[in-house]
Amino acid sequence: MDFVHSSYLGLDSHPAIVSGAIAAIQAQPSLNLSIAGKQQKFNLLRELEESLSGIFRARVLAFSSMMLVDLIAMSVLTSGQLTGGSKPVLVFDSFARLSLTCQKLMAHDTRVKTIVHNDIGALERLCRKNPAVAYVCDGVYWMGGYSPIQELRQLQERYGLFLYIDDAHGISTFGNQGEGYARSQFPHVLGDRTIITGSLANGFGASGGILMVGTADHEALFRQHSVHDPCSDPHNVAALGAALGSCKVHRSAELRQRQAQLAQRIDLFDRRIATAGKGNSLPIRTIIVGSEINASAIARGLFDSGFYTLVTFFPTVGKRAVGIRVCITAEHKEGDIEGLCDCFLEQFAERTGKPYPLR
Amino acid sequence: MDFVHSSYLGLDSHPAIVSGAIAAIQAQPSLNLSIAGKQQKFNLLRELEESLSGIFRARVLAFSSMMLVDLIAMSVLTSGQLTGGSKPVLVFDSFARLSLTCQKLMAHDTRVKTIVHNDIGALERLCRKNPAVAYVCDGVYWMGGYSPIQELRQLQERYGLFLYIDDAHGISTFGNQGEGYARSQFPHVLGDRTIITGSLANGFGASGGILMVGTADHEALFRQHSVHDPCSDPHNVAALGAALGSCKVHRSAELRQRQAQLAQRIDLFDRRIATAGKGNSLPIRTIIVGSEINASAIARGLFDSGFYTLVTFFPTVGKRAVGIRVCITAEHKEGDIEGLCDCFLEQFAERTGKPYPLR
Repeated sequence: MDFVHSSYLGLDSHPAIVSGAIAAIQAQPSLNLSIAGKQQKFNLLRELEESLSGIFRARVLAFSSMMLVDLIAMSVLTSGQLTGGSKPVLVFDSFARLSLTCQKLMAHDTRVKTIVHNDIGALERLCRKNPAVAYVCDGVYWMGGYSPIQELRQLQERYGLFLYIDDAHGISTFGNQGEGYARSQFPHVLGDRTIITGSLANGFGASGGILMVGTADHEALFRQHSVHDPCSDPHNVAALGAALGSCKVHRSAELRQRQAQLAQRIDLFDRRIATAGKGNSLPIRTIIVGSEINASAIARGLFDSGFYTLVTFFPTVGKRAVGIRVCITAEHKEGDIEGLCDCFLEQFAERTGKPYPLR
Repeated sequence: MDFVHSSYLGLDSHPAIVSGAIAAIQAQPSLNLSIAGKQQKFNLLRELEESLSGIFRARVLAFSSMMLVDLIAMSVLTSGQLTGGSKPVLVFDSFARLSLTCQKLMAHDTRVKTIVHNDIGALERLCRKNPAVAYVCDGVYWMGGYSPIQELRQLQERYGLFLYIDDAHGISTFGNQGEGYARSQFPHVLGDRTIITGSLANGFGASGGILMVGTADHEALFRQHSVHDPCSDPHNVAALGAALGSCKVHRSAELRQRQAQLAQRIDLFDRRIATAGKGNSLPIRTIIVGSEINASAIARGLFDSGFYTLVTFFPTVGKRAVGIRVCITAEHKEGDIEGLCDCFLEQFAERTGKPYPLR
């Protein structure tokens, strides 16, 4: 039983998505959308971007990988073109997915700061001191937890803070059409101070990445800056077909049914095992178990009983916070959740000699 | 008629590759290889890497995108771990595909130099002056042309030069098993001073990217540095299946037949239109036509007659070298090549008032 795979709504094995991928390959027939194809048979990509733009209520650009999205978004952001021509001070949440990757590869003249996870006070002080600040954070964090979007929007209104929100793990599970944790907390018009990225894998069930922008100028800017050699990473036709299949599911009532089913499964887990995330409706729970040795032993015990989870170490969840990461999906049966909880509680008691503390 | 798409051997619509992609999706059934899948059903990725390692006579790591390969390879290279612990001076060929992307995003303390395209003398001077030098170049360049591998190997032997060769456009078309322009010019053992990257799209006909390394230490190092969040860009199952299908073709006599057919088509082109690339056996030809206005008009005329080509501008081929880029593939019929050449010669004469100069 897989409690690692981040297909939160179970969409990646959905018949509409699997058959969408296969039908798209058969129609070409090829796995790559050629450059010529982009001109002559542009329809597949255009159709996808239009469909995504409707779902996410933004101008959506689709890319063959999340990494390509990251690179292009970061490249444009650091150039200053999104912040009235002045290069922003780039502030990273210390837990942000992009923090590690991007800081290694940042342009020479970019001023970079890292703040403690969700330290909005520190962010506000930086906003007061600097004319242009861009904050890079995740909507939903990989190990659980989330950004306080409403507080960030207040800083945005007060100081003109630019927000770059990576919602790779927030898409599909939140919002009426699955527009995601971050997007669903912004007004109908996204505006010119926010960009949101998302993965078309994970909850969405397909493959690739997207960038949501709020204005025609931003859209033009990002399209110009698609710097990477398009011949090397062409659009994957299977991914486009799968994403189109997933769009259909997102626009149907089935999405809300799957979201509701996921919520019910999360609630079931929360009633058995208390974690810091209790009640927050994210599908990710990290059970803190103290030492690395205990965490590894418990995860091994779970695995031997058929439950696949992940041990998360520093720096993912803070130096002392070693835990077991559990990813709950709509596909899990009630019995699967019960079985996992029973097995964890048993393993915990066995390894530590005491019951798991219900907080 | 498409003279842009870089499926040099016509493999991307090959039945073995298309059916490999579809069969892999159906077997999961899903487009993503989950992390759990990597443990439990690791076979697909392991099988692919083993097969690729045989074809390329190296330890091959496969990634979901070329961009991921670029990022990981550059990150490890700049750390100094490939050059005995000392951070190398990074020398880019001015035409290198990675030149533009990477220099924008280089780590703060990396010393970077750019040399004129294929200026081996300048590279040797840098090797004399600096204890650790890494040279970043393409095997085959996107707009035609190639690196002088034998001269680079001499510098490697003389000064310990580290080579990072991006052979995204050289895979499959060269070598007995399609091991590529660069790899086929190195000895059986690749050694510890060379890494070669390649695209699994283009000539290979599938999707994703590979990294070839020569030692177990390098392999371990690169696997450790797969920094990007694997949840965001999971391995695309269709791409893995397609690549496995392509491996079968690469190990069969059909590959040499397709290579021979491509060589024959290139020769046919060269006999009709002389370019700087004449006789060099690369499938890319750039026909220099002087002004941008003429180049655009001729490309438009070709397009209106059914031949899709690309106009290449500065900085791709040097400030004054505006030309028409033609990508020849094994799938082109003799009549297609003849038709393209006839049409180009006619368009050229019409726009410039004189015949295309045969050099």
